[in-house]
Amino acid sequence: MTDPIVDIGRAAGAPPLVAALTDYGAGPYRALLEASARYPQAPHLQWLDLDHSIPLGDVRAGALTLRRTVPHLPPCVCVAVVDPGVGTERRAIAVATPTGHRLVGPDNGLLEPTVRRLGGAVALVDLRATTFRPHRDARTFDGRDLFGPVAGALAAGATLHDVGEEAAPGSLVALALPAPRETSEGLVAVVLEIDAFGTVVLALDDQLAHLPHLMRLGESGTVRADGGERRGLRVGQTFADVPWGELVLYLDSDGALALARREGSAAKLLGVRAGDSLVIALDGDPTTNEPQVA
Amino acid sequence: MTDPIVDIGRAAGAPPLVAALTDYGAGPYRALLEASARYPQAPHLQWLDLDHSIPLGDVRAGALTLRRTVPHLPPCVCVAVVDPGVGTERRAIAVATPTGHRLVGPDNGLLEPTVRRLGGAVALVDLRATTFRPHRDARTFDGRDLFGPVAGALAAGATLHDVGEEAAPGSLVALALPAPRETSEGLVAVVLEIDAFGTVVLALDDQLAHLPHLMRLGESGTVRADGGERRGLRVGQTFADVPWGELVLYLDSDGALALARREGSAAKLLGVRAGDSLVIALDGDPTTNEPQVA
Amino acid sequence: MTDPIVDIGRAAGAPPLVAALTDYGAGPYRALLEASARYPQAPHLQWLDLDHSIPLGDVRAGALTLRRTVPHLPPCVCVAVVDPGVGTERRAIAVATPTGHRLVGPDNGLLEPTVRRLGGAVALVDLRATTFRPHRDARTFDGRDLFGPVAGALAAGATLHDVGEEAAPGSLVALALPAPRETSEGLVAVVLEIDAFGTVVLALDDQLAHLPHLMRLGESGTVRADGGERRGLRVGQTFADVPWGELVLYLDSDGALALARREGSAAKLLGVRAGDSLVIALDGDPTTNEPQVA
Repeated sequence: MTDPIVDIGRAAGAPPLVAALTDYGAGPYRALLEASARYPQAPHLQWLDLDHSIPLGDVRAGALTLRRTVPHLPPCVCVAVVDPGVGTERRAIAVATPTGHRLVGPDNGLLEPTVRRLGGAVALVDLRATTFRPHRDARTFDGRDLFGPVAGALAAGATLHDVGEEAAPGSLVALALPAPRETSEGLVAVVLEIDAFGTVVLALDDQLAHLPHLMRLGESGTVRADGGERRGLRVGQTFADVPWGELVLYLDSDGALALARREGSAAKLLGVRAGDSLVIALDGDPTTNEPQVA
Repeated sequence: MTDPIVDIGRAAGAPPLVAALTDYGAGPYRALLEASARYPQAPHLQWLDLDHSIPLGDVRAGALTLRRTVPHLPPCVCVAVVDPGVGTERRAIAVATPTGHRLVGPDNGLLEPTVRRLGGAVALVDLRATTFRPHRDARTFDGRDLFGPVAGALAAGATLHDVGEEAAPGSLVALALPAPRETSEGLVAVVLEIDAFGTVVLALDDQLAHLPHLMRLGESGTVRADGGERRGLRVGQTFADVPWGELVLYLDSDGALALARREGSAAKLLGVRAGDSLVIALDGDPTTNEPQVA
Repeated sequence: MTDPIVDIGRAAGAPPLVAALTDYGAGPYRALLEASARYPQAPHLQWLDLDHSIPLGDVRAGALTLRRTVPHLPPCVCVAVVDPGVGTERRAIAVATPTGHRLVGPDNGLLEPTVRRLGGAVALVDLRATTFRPHRDARTFDGRDLFGPVAGALAAGATLHDVGEEAAPGSLVALALPAPRETSEGLVAVVLEIDAFGTVVLALDDQLAHLPHLMRLGESGTVRADGGERRGLRVGQTFADVPWGELVLYLDSDGALALARREGSAAKLLGVRAGDSLVIALDGDPTTNEPQVA
């Protein structure tokens, strides 16, 4: 796998970019977040909607989607709001990575997998006492009243220290993610996320260090969810490596271990949702000896 | 409450902004509206999608969302299309407010609450005879064929008088909105809208003039929907003022009287939809004497 | 009908435009497509989301929506991805039309109706060996890894020959679309698409050449779905030509033959979905003699 960050580089002369991810859904909150970043401080910023369909309050889903998208962006500001704790004492933060990305949002694990993937936090500030917070009484819409204005200020040239109080980069709250483990029955993995195509993600790229020797292209095996039927699968590189309707175990476009169904939904076939466990047993009898993960 | 309009000011040197709200949903009509505003007259305009998920033909829902968003924008053009009367004799209008906002859409009540909040109409034109309407036979897609091109023309520098025939500002069609009323049982309020988080809006800020003496921070009480169970609530400032799963009666981020559930949907808990009535009884026994609405 | 292309003209001095249509839904893939077109080669491009709610893998629905939207755009680059064959040997192409539009996507019929409407293909290249494809192992996300970067390169000034290998314009894969036919029972038409308002599209403008003599404004008739009830309808120009709740047969804003219900969903009333057949019988007794289709 090449590193997508290296592929991109800095977009010289481009307007400052703010990318946004929330659980706001289709309503007007997205627009209010964007407006709060733009006006009045940064009307010329370039805005990129990453995803606003994160399930309500689902910090893990938001964190995984953020991690899947931000590394494909040039150095920019990312504002992310999946924040079941709004109005409580959880920290609001802005954090910088060595790649030049700056992320703004609640400190509840949402930002951490992305920050880690980008090389870790090199600076972190606590926004709770920021002077960028407009003088409003409302304490229930931090997206519009805190995170958006801070993101816009950063895009307009402010530094982290302009918008918050310095804190230890290592104090960033981590997200707990279950890793796949080998058992006598086979590989037991938790469904981390399911995408719009019904593809089931089982392990992130950085959780795969100990697994490559288990999988070889062309190898067949089975997969079973708790209480579900055992289904056949094949290790491949793409959907086309299996017949229509069959399951393929592969590294997805993001380097994660995933299970997809050609012309169908793997999640529906297996009857699984995020958080469910799967047991994968491989035959150890590959038709080719080329290892999939180089 | 500070006035959000005053907070923003004019964004100097920014490209002209067109904000859009419709009931077009996820399909291609949104894009056609945007394209009709941009091309050929205003390719450089800045476009802001406010909300396109307004329930089909629900003028009240559209009007309330417009009123909740436009005051957070700098002076701009807003095109709003929730228009069950397209093809009939209802007026198509453009209207200007003292804040420098210009709103374009059908004259069916959709624009009026926003115009009122921005200080009232200072000018109004009837677009039905506009020369900006492209010479097309179709009479069923006014968004693309009338409102979009007019919005783009205004963004590109046209005046109201360039795009329509002058009419009396006072002729703007008003939206009827039920106001909460005190009864012997308590406060009877109609659910005006429910947001993506299940928060129930009961009265707009400008309907609250006579209510402040009723609510004090920390006060407890009950709420009941027709035929529903009586539920406890507490008057607060934010979700964190009540335990998990409990109801809080508060002024939302927009100054409206609202009922939310910490980590859940108030609307689902109460089993209410927009248009339903609620009865709220407060104990008159606050744990603090600070009035919530100053 | 005037030709919408002629109405628009080239937007002089505008930034290069990339319009996008996919079946990616609400998730993060849309953003990754946009980012892959912009960065690093074309950060200043103007991006227009046409529609990302095409049903998963529904090439016909995508093709019809593309055909309905692109002709309203100035000369631009359109990237369209509804691609059940990703990872197989289907061609990936870029194709140019005499109007100055360039379309990028899989060669599975998705682009062809739009290309035909814009005057046919004047050049076509096969992208499978493009050097614009980043060096990634993943073969399952051509939107991000092939179509997006190619669209961005074209927007930034590349020619078709810079991005692919020349192929015969006539080799473009065509989309099969059922045309309405006259029978002894009446006009038999297949439901081509249903829009967000429940309007049923029965025939594209270019399939109507032989039908004008059948329809006259004001004429009444009936429509019936397989196994459904017979319903009255009237030939009109707009919803307002029939009473509330009634069906109107008309040419829609795009010149297509369509059936709509005033203040309701024609599709729900008739119980039809895309692909179903309808039989329309007209009385041949118009209240006016003016033909609807001139």
